[in-house]
Amino acid sequence: MPRYALKVEYQGAPFAGWQRQKEQTSVQGAIETALARLEPREHTIAAAGRTDAGVHALGQVAHCDLSRDWDPFRLSEALNYHLKPAPVAIVACAQVSNDWHARFSAVERRYLFRLMMRRAPATHEAGQVWQVKHALDVGAMQAAADQLIGRHDFTTFRSTICQAASPFKTLDELRIEDVESFFGREVQFHVRARSFLHNQVRSFVGTLERVGAGAWTPDDVGRALATRDRAACGPVCPPQGLYLAAVRYPEDPFA
Amino acid sequence: MPRYALKVEYQGAPFAGWQRQKEQTSVQGAIETALARLEPREHTIAAAGRTDAGVHALGQVAHCDLSRDWDPFRLSEALNYHLKPAPVAIVACAQVSNDWHARFSAVERRYLFRLMMRRAPATHEAGQVWQVKHALDVGAMQAAADQLIGRHDFTTFRSTICQAASPFKTLDELRIEDVESFFGREVQFHVRARSFLHNQVRSFVGTLERVGAGAWTPDDVGRALATRDRAACGPVCPPQGLYLAAVRYPEDPFA
Repeated sequence: MPRYALKVEYQGAPFAGWQRQKEQTSVQGAIETALARLEPREHTIAAAGRTDAGVHALGQVAHCDLSRDWDPFRLSEALNYHLKPAPVAIVACAQVSNDWHARFSAVERRYLFRLMMRRAPATHEAGQVWQVKHALDVGAMQAAADQLIGRHDFTTFRSTICQAASPFKTLDELRIEDVESFFGREVQFHVRARSFLHNQVRSFVGTLERVGAGAWTPDDVGRALATRDRAACGPVCPPQGLYLAAVRYPEDPFA
Repeated sequence: MPRYALKVEYQGAPFAGWQRQKEQTSVQGAIETALARLEPREHTIAAAGRTDAGVHALGQVAHCDLSRDWDPFRLSEALNYHLKPAPVAIVACAQVSNDWHARFSAVERRYLFRLMMRRAPATHEAGQVWQVKHALDVGAMQAAADQLIGRHDFTTFRSTICQAASPFKTLDELRIEDVESFFGREVQFHVRARSFLHNQVRSFVGTLERVGAGAWTPDDVGRALATRDRAACGPVCPPQGLYLAAVRYPEDPFA
């Protein structure tokens, strides 16, 4: 059976998350249902990152096995047709070898977190950003973020229900950008690692926001990390600012 | 009665346009209803640009007259509280003199038009952009746009129901930018004039899209303008990519 890699964009709000669940709408379920319209049978697809409820994607990657040989562009068009009106789109599609795996072949994940800093309620960007009404010191947030870079035991920044075998991860990038958008000031967090623990990015952002607000110092974050205790984490921020931005493979299947 | 200038941001989709209408939801009506929660009586507000159904605003400006002396920040906060959950926000507020008028004191309007150029259906930006699935030649579009700059009889690019006394307007800017966004390639039209005719920006963009697609040459646009005939206009594009971006006054009331 030929295997296809799919690059997937979606809005998180309507879904209980990526993963298929009984009686709840999931992104995986929506794509598997669309696949069943093309080849009627049960389909099970795998993804690089199982995003939580409310989390968006710009470049999630999944793979599926099909019986027929599909032209990749026609496959993406057919899936997009059957996905309508769900806010899920296949933005790229490529045939890959049968030992290629969306999750296990991935060597890097990139997340984007969008925090809108302004007083007036969000209108255009409601549900797409986490809105904070007070001013934030982005320099202090970056100083704190710098303490998280590298290989660490990230128990402090890991959900208690995280299923990863080890709390050790290597954080390659946590860059905070102060962006003037159409809608006001936006703080964008660019986070990059081979893989992440459950709730790791939202634990980072929620804690760094406390630094930006002046409630924590940058060194408090370093100390919280060293404590290796979930109770030392700041508040976990809400999901609606988080986007799985990109997944990298040794060779880009969509190039 | 003290007069207040309001800078207003809104999503166009839920509204039949800016202007109050019987039995239809309007932005003006939403703000006047919120004002009535603060000072119970009939309110009538004036705006710089009466946007059509589906057209968004980033920086619409309106003014209102109130009986009480309001601290401008508290007034904006109180209005935002009563506007919820409508996607309308007062992003700035200032007291102005009683001869200041949101519409008649304005010396410039800026519009932004967002055109998303990609094949896969829009997810995050659905309803916020006009999506075109084919490639566009932005250089040809700019060459055509350049022929529209300056003072002209814009009858070709004016709705037949336009109520302006004269079809002559001076177009100061029509700059087309090719932007790589999170969501793919976006063509942004930045349009600036003292004032506009009805449907002028959407007539421009719909016609320029035909140039980008190769159906029209840039010179065809110059000829269509010279014809001064509404029938010579290209298709009027849909409203969901259009934003009233800013209104300029001799002195910025919000500075």
